[in-house]
Amino acid sequence: MMDNTNDSMNRMQALLDNLTKPKGSLGELEDIALKLSRVQGKVPPNAEKRGIWVFAGDHGIAQEGVSLYPADVTVQMYANIAQGGAAINVLARGCGFDLSLIDGGMLNDPPPQQGRVLKAAKGSRNFLQEEAMTQAELEQSLANGRQLACEAADQGYELVAIGDMGIANTTTATALVVAGGLPLDSIIDKGTGIDDETLAHKKQVIAAAVEKHAPYDGPMHIMRAVGGLELAAMTGFILGLKGKGIGCLIDGFPVSSAAYMAYLLDPEVSDYLFAGHLSKVKGHKVILDAMGLRPLLSLDMRLGEGTGAVMGGFLVYLSTRIPKEMATFDSAQVSRSEVDEEAY
Amino acid sequence: MMDNTNDSMNRMQALLDNLTKPKGSLGELEDIALKLSRVQGKVPPNAEKRGIWVFAGDHGIAQEGVSLYPADVTVQMYANIAQGGAAINVLARGCGFDLSLIDGGMLNDPPPQQGRVLKAAKGSRNFLQEEAMTQAELEQSLANGRQLACEAADQGYELVAIGDMGIANTTTATALVVAGGLPLDSIIDKGTGIDDETLAHKKQVIAAAVEKHAPYDGPMHIMRAVGGLELAAMTGFILGLKGKGIGCLIDGFPVSSAAYMAYLLDPEVSDYLFAGHLSKVKGHKVILDAMGLRPLLSLDMRLGEGTGAVMGGFLVYLSTRIPKEMATFDSAQVSRSEVDEEAY
Repeated sequence: MMDNTNDSMNRMQALLDNLTKPKGSLGELEDIALKLSRVQGKVPPNAEKRGIWVFAGDHGIAQEGVSLYPADVTVQMYANIAQGGAAINVLARGCGFDLSLIDGGMLNDPPPQQGRVLKAAKGSRNFLQEEAMTQAELEQSLANGRQLACEAADQGYELVAIGDMGIANTTTATALVVAGGLPLDSIIDKGTGIDDETLAHKKQVIAAAVEKHAPYDGPMHIMRAVGGLELAAMTGFILGLKGKGIGCLIDGFPVSSAAYMAYLLDPEVSDYLFAGHLSKVKGHKVILDAMGLRPLLSLDMRLGEGTGAVMGGFLVYLSTRIPKEMATFDSAQVSRSEVDEEAY
Repeated sequence: MMDNTNDSMNRMQALLDNLTKPKGSLGELEDIALKLSRVQGKVPPNAEKRGIWVFAGDHGIAQEGVSLYPADVTVQMYANIAQGGAAINVLARGCGFDLSLIDGGMLNDPPPQQGRVLKAAKGSRNFLQEEAMTQAELEQSLANGRQLACEAADQGYELVAIGDMGIANTTTATALVVAGGLPLDSIIDKGTGIDDETLAHKKQVIAAAVEKHAPYDGPMHIMRAVGGLELAAMTGFILGLKGKGIGCLIDGFPVSSAAYMAYLLDPEVSDYLFAGHLSKVKGHKVILDAMGLRPLLSLDMRLGEGTGAVMGGFLVYLSTRIPKEMATFDSAQVSRSEVDEEAY
């Protein structure tokens, strides 16, 4: 955190309280403006330059039949995002986020003109059988994410968001947070239409895999044993943002699991993380609560790709315009209430 | 409702289900696109041309000391909105809504260049002492709102929003919905920093006023006895939108009370109403539930002016871009799951 944190917080609060509205009446919109001000050390904060990084990857655990989509869909959807036709393309455009597409660990390489390949390996291993990746692959994935964070800062991004795409990544995400100490029964979810039999199978696979690699010697061991290449890159991205004065929106369950790994390594990451939304996936709230993050939206979405992150991110952007564009009581010659708290 | 309602709903659902995402995975974003499609009878629906109408008015009940702001603040804040410095100006710009400012019943006339004066009287009467307005004033206020709805349709608006501003309008709003049958104890709220003594006084004033004019002979009697001029104009605006193929966002407690009066007169208005947000005011959820509306946002805001309406309205706008800009499974050559419901 910056030295001037408390000073900028106090100045930001004073600025918000002097605007022509009852104190605190914009609720969470004021809270997020305050938080971004603290992150950036700026009064008011800025979110003009916004970007989302979508990390794609494949998961060896898909071999266990935990997803109803074939693994080919990862590279097909990657191409779709590269061509601008996925939901995240529409919502990133609509919310003013530049989109960077990263192959963080797909089995198949995409065509050269599609996105950016930055991966330590072609897919993770089946962690029901063996560790998902080697220590070197884990470290490379984390370093890849850190590199992207440095580039984002160099390019002047003020607010960034993270999206995910990869068949079976919810299974990996579940294994990560369960190995990280969150209870399986509060996390596991049929997600999205899996029938009861498939759900029972998915739960059994996760429980067995987490048990197989226990006991865990910290987050690095967890990520190596039951993680994913692109999820580790997200973890590195989040860790790499520390001290750079950039706010970071996380999305649904998979991105939040990567954020939780970053949080276990360094709890201060929650100081600059914003939860874009609460997804429909059962365990998402458990992860957000564990990091002390309150979601900005709750629209029963369960798509991923960063769709909830950019929509929540637009609210963060709006919050930065309030202190820049609103009149003050003095400038507008509006009377204050004695207690200055009643709605008009 | 239009003849082709079911047909357009079916075509819209088919369109959404053919986009490159698991079925239903955009949650409420799909629901609101479907609802707007039904309202407009268009597949996909449009929300390119958006506008917010902010209705200002004064309330005679303010003489009873129910608000901590002096009544002068209504015209001061009106001027602030006219000059672009209020929260609703910032958020309407940010969310792409044109703003129309209406003096729907202020005590003082604004300067000629500020907004538009369309009022049946200069302030309502103190409804603890007498009826808030005459039958003629009520009918004129409703007609004023209907006129604005016609103009909005003529100007091509596809999505409209309603905002409120007026000292003591929450007291009037509470009296309206309590007289309309909702229980006082579930509705009354200290709102926003009123101390316990002021709250007890406000509650006593409302209970006494509602009792004074009982029994009520329907919504027209309620609005005349304990209503507000600008709130009645909102009611007329909402009623006037029926059949025009325009979606309408409501805001917090005062606007919702006006919508509730429209709903009592014609329950079909809920077919084209969208609840922009759930405010921090305790009774807001009670009104929305009574109309079967689910709020799009819940950010503990309690400012009014339409701030929650335009922010929720931006989500409605985003929902209309999804079916226009996303690729289909066929066009993007993405494989479907057999059950087509699992997240990627």
